[in-house]
Amino acid sequence: MTAAELLGSVLPDERSAAFVTSAVSLRYLCGIEISGAAAIISRETRFLFVGTSGVSAEGFTVVRLRKLSQILDVLVKYGIKRLYVESDKMTVSEFEMFRNSLHYADFIANSELSEAILKLRTVKSEGEIALVKKAQAACDKAYHRLLTTVRKGMTERQIAAQMTYLLLEFGADEAAFPVKALSGENSGDAGAFSGERQIREGDFLLLEFGAKVGGYCAEMARTVAVGRVSSKQEDAYNAVSCAIFDGLKTLRADINSNVPDSVAKATLNAWNADKYARGNFAHGIGLEISEPPFLGENGSTMLKAGMTLAAGCDVRAPGKYGIKIIDTCALTHDGCVNFTAATREMIHI
Amino acid sequence: MTAAELLGSVLPDERSAAFVTSAVSLRYLCGIEISGAAAIISRETRFLFVGTSGVSAEGFTVVRLRKLSQILDVLVKYGIKRLYVESDKMTVSEFEMFRNSLHYADFIANSELSEAILKLRTVKSEGEIALVKKAQAACDKAYHRLLTTVRKGMTERQIAAQMTYLLLEFGADEAAFPVKALSGENSGDAGAFSGERQIREGDFLLLEFGAKVGGYCAEMARTVAVGRVSSKQEDAYNAVSCAIFDGLKTLRADINSNVPDSVAKATLNAWNADKYARGNFAHGIGLEISEPPFLGENGSTMLKAGMTLAAGCDVRAPGKYGIKIIDTCALTHDGCVNFTAATREMIHI
Repeated sequence: MTAAELLGSVLPDERSAAFVTSAVSLRYLCGIEISGAAAIISRETRFLFVGTSGVSAEGFTVVRLRKLSQILDVLVKYGIKRLYVESDKMTVSEFEMFRNSLHYADFIANSELSEAILKLRTVKSEGEIALVKKAQAACDKAYHRLLTTVRKGMTERQIAAQMTYLLLEFGADEAAFPVKALSGENSGDAGAFSGERQIREGDFLLLEFGAKVGGYCAEMARTVAVGRVSSKQEDAYNAVSCAIFDGLKTLRADINSNVPDSVAKATLNAWNADKYARGNFAHGIGLEISEPPFLGENGSTMLKAGMTLAAGCDVRAPGKYGIKIIDTCALTHDGCVNFTAATREMIHI
Repeated sequence: MTAAELLGSVLPDERSAAFVTSAVSLRYLCGIEISGAAAIISRETRFLFVGTSGVSAEGFTVVRLRKLSQILDVLVKYGIKRLYVESDKMTVSEFEMFRNSLHYADFIANSELSEAILKLRTVKSEGEIALVKKAQAACDKAYHRLLTTVRKGMTERQIAAQMTYLLLEFGADEAAFPVKALSGENSGDAGAFSGERQIREGDFLLLEFGAKVGGYCAEMARTVAVGRVSSKQEDAYNAVSCAIFDGLKTLRADINSNVPDSVAKATLNAWNADKYARGNFAHGIGLEISEPPFLGENGSTMLKAGMTLAAGCDVRAPGKYGIKIIDTCALTHDGCVNFTAATREMIHI
């Protein structure tokens, strides 16, 4: 079944339909990049209303929309009396416009539709996984090449610019988010942006980057030592490196989502590195750089095969240094397939 | 007066306040990059409610928000009974949450607040203009350098990657949108993305790019000839080049916003190039890559000194070639200051 058919199948009855308008949900359910469009998905039928000509979407009847009454006609024809909308994505203005024009149906503007779509999105198809893998390959190649060009004296901004170039050069359609290259004390500030600081002996250089291919994201983070670093820095690095190793070992389908985080945090704790730990061990990655499931201490769901995750650890000692290591992987029943090839051992440049 | 004070001054009375929650409006009114925050701006007072510590915003009382009742307390204390929200930016979920928690005030969810903010945003302060100018300088330098490296046989994707790197290298915080490098028949397709096509003799290479500096955007487009192009292509290029020249000549404060577009279109028409013309002659540029005013044939407002615009012409002959030339400029009472240094004459590479 396609994603749209699956969504149709969870609707309560034939008279209900999902009214999908956000670009990300349309990308997921209709398989195309489009904005300013609307899809109606019921158990029986799937319509896509678009503003421009030449659009096609597999499994959908595409209608060139000239006035909203064309949507009304579809509702009447198929007896659709209840329209679920994405209340966390639709603006108040859009909602008022649709409700006034499509008065034939009752609008349900709670979180049900958004949650149903997000739930479907957590488990990826083979095609989706292939795109995440391709995005991760671009990250790995770019990182590998970057290591051959980074030199002491380069600014964070230059390194970030170079990395952005390499991501595109190695197959990314675009960077999934602005590349971060943070060095020295800046690496200790999770909110910092790549600036004019030149990297120098004794720095950690924290690199955080992602690639988008065919709409799907991969994320990667590595932290490298510039020349010799202190034994304190080395200890902190090893703590992070061990914590992600231990966390990844636990990752597989059919476990509680809060297990990997608690394992990774326990390792950080054993190394006395937990007080600077930030965030959760992992989160879903796909059409968005961060999407459900969220693998932290709060909330618990069962992990499923086919989930793609960005997993790792983030430790920041404010004013001193920071270490972040992130891999992108996919869950199977036996464990996880790590798409990230680069070593997590400390590299000196 | 600051932007926030100006907004406060257009509110109907002391019991009304703007309830601002979108990141772009917060950036504009509070002067800082922040999301997941909310500002209350009345005639008398300005509060900013934030989720993290260490935030400061000039002219605002910053409150670390732990529960929504803290906002309620402010409403009660200052007797604010009417809250205007950005109905085109606030989601239905957010609106319901705020309305349920802040029942002390009536919520006004029409387009009034958004329009008032957009209207203020159209006229830039000196500080804002300086950032747009800096962003344009990055575009110009990057374009200038790119011309020294582009060679026949390079793919569109490689050229776009190179340009993205150069924008960052020359001072952009990030590319304002994914760089487009379109060649040959691809340049005739306004919806195309930079792909694997190699540029070759006889192509137009259409370059569309933008830079963001301190939150503010500049946009630039240039079209260069690869080797020798046909006389038909040359004619079309000259038509576009003359049309933007004529349009820019008319640009100044205190004229009707539809004049420059009609002048530019008339020039295209005189050259028989109007049938492939796309879009309006100019639009506002600032915190967003495209914002009011829109200088097309529809709608008419008076242009004002201090408006920053991306202005130019876009002509696409589908399946054949396309030409786009865009400059970024600022309006004065006498004319416009063009921030774009690069020539609009045809360049051969």
